[in-house]
Amino acid sequence: MRAEQGRGRVIIEGVKPEIDGGRFPIKRTVGERVIVEADIFAEGHDVLAGVLRYRHEANPEWSETPLEFVVNDRWRAAFAVTRLGRYHYCLEAWVDRFKTWRRDLRKKVDAGQDGAIDLLVGAELIEATSRRSSGPDATTLRERAAALRSDRPSDPSGRIRVALADDLALLVARYPDRRFATTYGKELHVVVDQERARFSTWYEMFPRSCAPEPGVHGTFKDCEERLPYVAEMGFDVLYFPPIHPIGRTHRKGKNNSPVAGPDDPGSPWAIGSGEGGHKAVHPQLGTLDDFRRLLAKARAYGIEIALDIAFQCSPDHPYVKEHPESFRWRPDGTIQYAENPPKKYEDIYPFEFETEDWQQLWDELRSIVLFWIDQGVRIFRVDNPHTKPFRFWAWVIDTIKRDHPDVIFLAEAFTRPKVMYELAKLGFAQSYTYFAWRNTKEELTQYFNELYQTEAREYFRANLWPNTPDILTDYLQSGGRTAFMIRFVLAATLGANYGIYGPAFELCEHRAREPGSEEYLDSEKYEIKHWDITRSDSLREFITRVNRIRRENPALQNNGGLRFHAVDNEQLLCFSKGTEDQANVILVVVNLSPHYTHAGWVELDLDALGLARERAYQVHDLLNNARYLWHGPRNYVELNPHTVPASIFRVRRRIRTERDFDYYL
Amino acid sequence: MRAEQGRGRVIIEGVKPEIDGGRFPIKRTVGERVIVEADIFAEGHDVLAGVLRYRHEANPEWSETPLEFVVNDRWRAAFAVTRLGRYHYCLEAWVDRFKTWRRDLRKKVDAGQDGAIDLLVGAELIEATSRRSSGPDATTLRERAAALRSDRPSDPSGRIRVALADDLALLVARYPDRRFATTYGKELHVVVDQERARFSTWYEMFPRSCAPEPGVHGTFKDCEERLPYVAEMGFDVLYFPPIHPIGRTHRKGKNNSPVAGPDDPGSPWAIGSGEGGHKAVHPQLGTLDDFRRLLAKARAYGIEIALDIAFQCSPDHPYVKEHPESFRWRPDGTIQYAENPPKKYEDIYPFEFETEDWQQLWDELRSIVLFWIDQGVRIFRVDNPHTKPFRFWAWVIDTIKRDHPDVIFLAEAFTRPKVMYELAKLGFAQSYTYFAWRNTKEELTQYFNELYQTEAREYFRANLWPNTPDILTDYLQSGGRTAFMIRFVLAATLGANYGIYGPAFELCEHRAREPGSEEYLDSEKYEIKHWDITRSDSLREFITRVNRIRRENPALQNNGGLRFHAVDNEQLLCFSKGTEDQANVILVVVNLSPHYTHAGWVELDLDALGLARERAYQVHDLLNNARYLWHGPRNYVELNPHTVPASIFRVRRRIRTERDFDYYL
Repeated sequence: MRAEQGRGRVIIEGVKPEIDGGRFPIKRTVGERVIVEADIFAEGHDVLAGVLRYRHEANPEWSETPLEFVVNDRWRAAFAVTRLGRYHYCLEAWVDRFKTWRRDLRKKVDAGQDGAIDLLVGAELIEATSRRSSGPDATTLRERAAALRSDRPSDPSGRIRVALADDLALLVARYPDRRFATTYGKELHVVVDQERARFSTWYEMFPRSCAPEPGVHGTFKDCEERLPYVAEMGFDVLYFPPIHPIGRTHRKGKNNSPVAGPDDPGSPWAIGSGEGGHKAVHPQLGTLDDFRRLLAKARAYGIEIALDIAFQCSPDHPYVKEHPESFRWRPDGTIQYAENPPKKYEDIYPFEFETEDWQQLWDELRSIVLFWIDQGVRIFRVDNPHTKPFRFWAWVIDTIKRDHPDVIFLAEAFTRPKVMYELAKLGFAQSYTYFAWRNTKEELTQYFNELYQTEAREYFRANLWPNTPDILTDYLQSGGRTAFMIRFVLAATLGANYGIYGPAFELCEHRAREPGSEEYLDSEKYEIKHWDITRSDSLREFITRVNRIRRENPALQNNGGLRFHAVDNEQLLCFSKGTEDQANVILVVVNLSPHYTHAGWVELDLDALGLARERAYQVHDLLNNARYLWHGPRNYVELNPHTVPASIFRVRRRIRTERDFDYYL
Repeated sequence: MRAEQGRGRVIIEGVKPEIDGGRFPIKRTVGERVIVEADIFAEGHDVLAGVLRYRHEANPEWSETPLEFVVNDRWRAAFAVTRLGRYHYCLEAWVDRFKTWRRDLRKKVDAGQDGAIDLLVGAELIEATSRRSSGPDATTLRERAAALRSDRPSDPSGRIRVALADDLALLVARYPDRRFATTYGKELHVVVDQERARFSTWYEMFPRSCAPEPGVHGTFKDCEERLPYVAEMGFDVLYFPPIHPIGRTHRKGKNNSPVAGPDDPGSPWAIGSGEGGHKAVHPQLGTLDDFRRLLAKARAYGIEIALDIAFQCSPDHPYVKEHPESFRWRPDGTIQYAENPPKKYEDIYPFEFETEDWQQLWDELRSIVLFWIDQGVRIFRVDNPHTKPFRFWAWVIDTIKRDHPDVIFLAEAFTRPKVMYELAKLGFAQSYTYFAWRNTKEELTQYFNELYQTEAREYFRANLWPNTPDILTDYLQSGGRTAFMIRFVLAATLGANYGIYGPAFELCEHRAREPGSEEYLDSEKYEIKHWDITRSDSLREFITRVNRIRRENPALQNNGGLRFHAVDNEQLLCFSKGTEDQANVILVVVNLSPHYTHAGWVELDLDALGLARERAYQVHDLLNNARYLWHGPRNYVELNPHTVPASIFRVRRRIRTERDFDYYL
């Protein structure tokens, strides 16, 4: 035991946020705050003091901010993260002899006791402080110590005033005695991502379906033409399924037929052919130059292009010949294709991560991501990451983000909850969720409370998708256009990150391949589609309006402030989101039934909305511009799904000045 | 990264029990089980296997027991602790290729697929297993592998039967391929105490008040005479306040008067005089030999004597001269006495744990405990441990228990919850609680659910005291003899460990020094008392009966099985305790009002009681021997506090055989 340790008295425990004992970092985006809490206490009743220490990984110097006492031995402090990359944070606390002495002296004086000896004790403490300081502070401290020791004025009450003076306390607090301080035993980490990790609006689109006329294979150039359409709707991430050459062996035909016709384009996820593998572009889409130009054009529209990382091969992939050791060989000399018995996926070879040459495999796969980063891509949607080892992803993401801290990975894992959480912990910036299958009020409330009100909020960033090329839910199949609107509003307001697979979504494509299936009829995965994006029943305008509301209201750009409010009707869901300072508060009411008008009384948690119980306030429906004057927690709502199935209210505290004039006249 | 690590695929997380990331051990007593759970999963859908590993610290060899799958990636295993001291436990898990192969083969066969190549894959796995085995097992495995490879019978279904045979699966499971296994990153610890740490019945008594006639200072010999009285009531720990010489300087008089009369004996907690310090015996009590004889006699009655460890000194303590550096000196050359401004305790000098010579102080204080261990003491009640540094206690307890694993320390800390929990974490085997101040149904339910249903149950062993020499609660002051019975039943049934300060308790001493105070009038702390233990209104018989019920019912010897049950009357508290196997189940109903008869309907959680919904059962009141036939969850209870304010039911499942005959006739 070090000499000081026997004299150290402070315990620091129960630190939050801290994921799995500090094994995993928490996540923030540039500009956000990290609020840190801990149980801090010592034996006895001495006064404690402490600091939260933090630094960016590139900065060897720690910054410090004082810990404030909250309640029941709980302390708190916060810091803002302003740079991409990794921050470290830690805690340090100590017994503050001077503060203890000062508190006790005050108590004694209040009780009419003589403080003569206490003044001498204080003088010693102040002198010791002066030795830790320098310059004018040291002089001042020495003078104060002398004043406490002096016998003039002979009445000690004058000296006690000097001893208890606030400026002395502030001065001493600048030079605390931290010799016996306790440092929390672990350094904890924050990964700081670009803002789109927290607030992003995704649009998934098959480039090959973007040609202006039917029956023609779309190109990156066609995609350029589609950019204004996507940008005007308010999307800022445009995600493409794999853009690589597609295998021919065991190619799937229309509607997942095991036999492809000569003109069937195949699934883009069957990656690799004689024309190249994961670092090549499917020739019918264009060239790598075309892709880079599209990327630049998209960026000019405020759109990032996200690519799909699907680590698997068609039997025709060049890796099969170049790296046979990266696959699992069967005793009959064939390669093990993907299977989930009794299902077989003979057009797909998974990589064999148990290979002895795993390091080569890891390096090669990472080089694929780096290749596309070199082309300018910064956002990746990773296909089925839960079928590759966790350690592999942890290594890939960690090593890539060291050099490219602005890169974001979205985990497309629809699997068991602990597996999904693990992927988020180890580094995926965003994660797909079970949102598509949460339809009732109870389901939605329970699920989003779990995602946003538990520790998961520190590392799991939900990205909500009402549909994907694989997921056409029963609800969308059966609820008509209104069902699409309902699910859209839920995704766009419950999720600071959300996405849709379009144009299927805005055109309300709802035909399933067969009853009970979530597969689309004539799925775009196996054929080129031509979508009439100009159709009058498109949700384009509705989507545009909601995305504008998202951009204009910071409350919707974060999930931390989510609160559900009671409504006495099971079909009405009511929740609010607010910024930390409650300057922007949004209240959403959704009719979950696509068929019938529903009405009910909401019972608002006024505290969560930053509203005083006794004052009226205005709710302004940003969807239809209607305004209502409400008062207290209980208010009536009614939603007809055949007009608009939701209200997105901006809550405005009623301020009685001329500025409100236009709202009320 | 080690070569194997890249091929390791299993994650082990969320291990329970694990206190503060493994910084603190959990606690058990000899013969108890440790049930360990963890989230264990890998990417993909392969079948996993794993073991819980454990060993006593004295045994370098690990034992292993297989982990069983529970639900939602949760796995569980258990081991029993059979020796005093410290156990280590850990987890290991791996992907089981053979089990995965077997499951998939079965699925394929069920789907009518050809398993020809799979048989060859299996043969390879079985051959690899044979290489990890030896002797007849290796031969058998080689033969099976050959059978799978053989082309006879030509119909593969016969070979598939061989492949899927249960005996083959069992044989292969004995030689798992653990090359790429994941070992949980931490070894966790269990401290195993003697049984009295979990189940003990304490009686606190001032030896000096044990003389047979009034006005005479009691002796250890008098205590010997009192042993049958204590033993017959059913107590197995007899705890003495400090037995050391008592200081004279600033000695307190009767009722804590600042001036003592010449005959006032002083507080036993003002330790040390010219006659010795913490390693000496107060001469009026007898000699060290007398004490050792008392210890031996007590043990013959099944009673352990517990001593009080109060690390503080009277101004007359020999340490003041011998170790002046162990105290805090003030600038006027005096020693700082204990104070909690504006209160002063001039008869007590605390030790200065911030002394530069802290190591000497620590060693000396530990030597006090070791001295009494050498005399044969095994149980210590530690006075105000929350006013000495946590690190000091951790070191004292840890180093002492290494050589004396049967020693138990009880923490007498009535302070903030996190401080109390910390003392338990760092090694105190038992802890005083807030029980004395928890009177209402809501208070009791909330508090005991916190103590017994949260992680605290793993390290915090409550010891419930309805009174102490410092604590005479309002409830006892005002509720008469019935209040003492109520609080006694609650302590003795809610707490596997409990204690009373007697004879004040059984004689229902309820006079406070002044209104609003919890101090006794004419407190035994400052004077010698003479108690008439033969009084007819003594609770002696009631205590005896309840303690016999405790001894005869293992359900009351543990707190893990506590469940509260609803009653539709706020004054009636109903709870049950059961053994792990539910062979012994006790149901307690207490009328919390000492004044009025209360009745109500209990709504029992039948599952917690191990009762089937459709069968009748008997509840047998062990206090008055009454028996009732109940059915279903809802039953009527009525308790008149002026007869007995509680029922302690043994729940007997009604078994329709002649063995039940005597119950029902």
